[in-house]
Amino acid sequence: MKKSWVPIPEGSDFPLENLPYGIFQINRQHPRAGVAIGDYILDLHAVAEVGLLEEIPNAAEVFGSSYLNAFIALGKPVWQVARQKITELLLESNKELQPYRDQVLIRQADATLQMPVQIGNYTDFYSSIEHATNVGKQFRPDNPLLPNWKHLPIAYHGRASSIVVSGTDIHRPKGQRKVADADVPTFGPSKRMDFELEVAFVIGKETALGQTVSTSQAEEHIFGFFLFNDWSARDIQGWEYQPLGPFLGKNFASSVSPWIVTLDALEPFRTGSPVQNPTVLPYLQYEGEHSFDIQLEVAIQPEGTTEQIVCRSNFKYLYWNICQQLAHHTVNGCNLCIGDVMASGTISGESADSWGSLLELTEGGRKPLIFLDGVERKFLEDNDTVVMKGFCEKDGLRIGFGEVRGKLLPSL
Amino acid sequence: MKKSWVPIPEGSDFPLENLPYGIFQINRQHPRAGVAIGDYILDLHAVAEVGLLEEIPNAAEVFGSSYLNAFIALGKPVWQVARQKITELLLESNKELQPYRDQVLIRQADATLQMPVQIGNYTDFYSSIEHATNVGKQFRPDNPLLPNWKHLPIAYHGRASSIVVSGTDIHRPKGQRKVADADVPTFGPSKRMDFELEVAFVIGKETALGQTVSTSQAEEHIFGFFLFNDWSARDIQGWEYQPLGPFLGKNFASSVSPWIVTLDALEPFRTGSPVQNPTVLPYLQYEGEHSFDIQLEVAIQPEGTTEQIVCRSNFKYLYWNICQQLAHHTVNGCNLCIGDVMASGTISGESADSWGSLLELTEGGRKPLIFLDGVERKFLEDNDTVVMKGFCEKDGLRIGFGEVRGKLLPSL
Repeated sequence: MKKSWVPIPEGSDFPLENLPYGIFQINRQHPRAGVAIGDYILDLHAVAEVGLLEEIPNAAEVFGSSYLNAFIALGKPVWQVARQKITELLLESNKELQPYRDQVLIRQADATLQMPVQIGNYTDFYSSIEHATNVGKQFRPDNPLLPNWKHLPIAYHGRASSIVVSGTDIHRPKGQRKVADADVPTFGPSKRMDFELEVAFVIGKETALGQTVSTSQAEEHIFGFFLFNDWSARDIQGWEYQPLGPFLGKNFASSVSPWIVTLDALEPFRTGSPVQNPTVLPYLQYEGEHSFDIQLEVAIQPEGTTEQIVCRSNFKYLYWNICQQLAHHTVNGCNLCIGDVMASGTISGESADSWGSLLELTEGGRKPLIFLDGVERKFLEDNDTVVMKGFCEKDGLRIGFGEVRGKLLPSL
Repeated sequence: MKKSWVPIPEGSDFPLENLPYGIFQINRQHPRAGVAIGDYILDLHAVAEVGLLEEIPNAAEVFGSSYLNAFIALGKPVWQVARQKITELLLESNKELQPYRDQVLIRQADATLQMPVQIGNYTDFYSSIEHATNVGKQFRPDNPLLPNWKHLPIAYHGRASSIVVSGTDIHRPKGQRKVADADVPTFGPSKRMDFELEVAFVIGKETALGQTVSTSQAEEHIFGFFLFNDWSARDIQGWEYQPLGPFLGKNFASSVSPWIVTLDALEPFRTGSPVQNPTVLPYLQYEGEHSFDIQLEVAIQPEGTTEQIVCRSNFKYLYWNICQQLAHHTVNGCNLCIGDVMASGTISGESADSWGSLLELTEGGRKPLIFLDGVERKFLEDNDTVVMKGFCEKDGLRIGFGEVRGKLLPSL
């Protein structure tokens, strides 16, 4: 573990080996880019202003933007130069930046974190076989997985405009739903509000219309990852989704964690994915390991009580990996843009405490979760806060994602 | 009919009463905004530069943008001032602009038309009951319409990045498909390439997350309309779409006509929509007429032969109108952004020659279309060009959309 002149508390998500990127604001100033380090943010715009990021083209302007897209657009060689340079500047042995400490370091507690990227297009995959099976069982007990599921990474397009950053409260959506034995639908606030535990990646390199990305090229197109809560209104979704898929049951909001953890930071936690059987078509085959051992957890905090962890899962459980997802998404020539977000779909594991949604955890609302203090939950209630965390840990190194937090307010 | 000093050929789509907005480029100069008038484009940036659009805030900058979003963001009162002012300047009796004729008028034939708006989010509805019934019959002959169809305007999110302007050629996409009696899917160029005849509207006024738009407010949020070809690969779509809807079967490309026809220009052609039975929920009820009598046609031109019209339809056939679509889209609080595109879904009528896709026209490829010269088509073949046109016509007034044209090139 490298030592920095910035204090890193024991168990911090943000040691010198992480350096995730985000956008923050202080004192109503213009938003700017920073990296998280311990309990602080290193203000990259300020570092550029004192002349210490000359390796990055137009660093002051790029890091003075409201979104990371301009930095991401500089390309992978520049990301790597930036990581190396920021690491050097923060090393205990380095004296270049320390004299400017008061100018460049902001306590995270004093800053407001913002949406880190401007998202052009958002795709949601459905890549956990345990999740697809759990959900499928509720509709087709004998044949839960549809015939296409093991042949391609199923996905659909979601709504980019309503993706918000951690800390943004969400209002319970209204909409149509129909109970099974009713003739006609009714209208009102959703009664089956849920979260979905997901991890998403951000596209870092665009492609032209018609261009394909092979599984071996795919990682070149990925800038980094954040946590993703795909809020879902199950009753609205259940009534609307045939035949064209989820719409109003999802597009009222999705929440992301504010820090983008780079592929480079995740490298020590690279791991393989589950064996795929049947064998997939050649364009979905891959070499090497393309998943990551990211521990995930979801807690619910009913108003005025403590958080209760309801799910512990792991990114590595996903059946379809990120390279297969990107190869599939582009195999028809669909073009990628910098800042596009590709979410994993709900990440569930084999054990019942690893399921990534209340739909699964409560078996469609039939078996309530019972918290330590006796509180019960079938679905989310008004003023419940949902908190998702993610981190990698091995040999004393911890690379964390921070959290994505959001409170479900009553309907407007 | 008002007279302009710009010659308007008989039968032109672009009389003084139309004035649709677009973005064009000449001689590799920076793209800029214009309105179509007869065979010409009025260069609004140039008009602003000679000081004749002072009613529009920052007119030279706004009309010198690469997209219309900046102009649209000025709001409906400014759109109406602009329309009135441009009409005045083009009237035969007005002498202010005529001295600058060579500076401000460009022949359409000399310009390259570009994407008129930067599209943040794209939604595709499914609002033609004839289309939904025709497609449903191929899967469920006895029960073609799903139970939710008459209760809500079904829609899904499409891919914004791959929407291209008329004249952009498309490559036949590759992908997975599975024939009914096969055990496993195969990979290759789509064998069932289709068009979908649609009309889309462009959002002109944003909303905040959580805000709803009622049917009576909806038209305030609409800037204008263009033609939309939702290219579809039926074999890819058929294999992938369950349970989350269309993805790679659609997102390789959609094509739009370059001119945005405003709501004001369409006003004389306002008309009602089909009676809805059963009665819809209160938030979907509306007063007044919210459809338009827009005649639509689709032609296919196989390489080296003449165009053959294969479909004549009308926007007014749609069961769900634009106000119902917007009220539904926002009833859960989903936020709208300027430049968002909402497409109608395939517009089919009752008669077999009004069906808006080859899937319907050839009954899923079972009954080929036979052209005058003996050419047959079940689905599109390589180097076929698809041309869609739209226009309103009444009492000698014609308000046209121009066309959306695209050639299907062989797979890359």
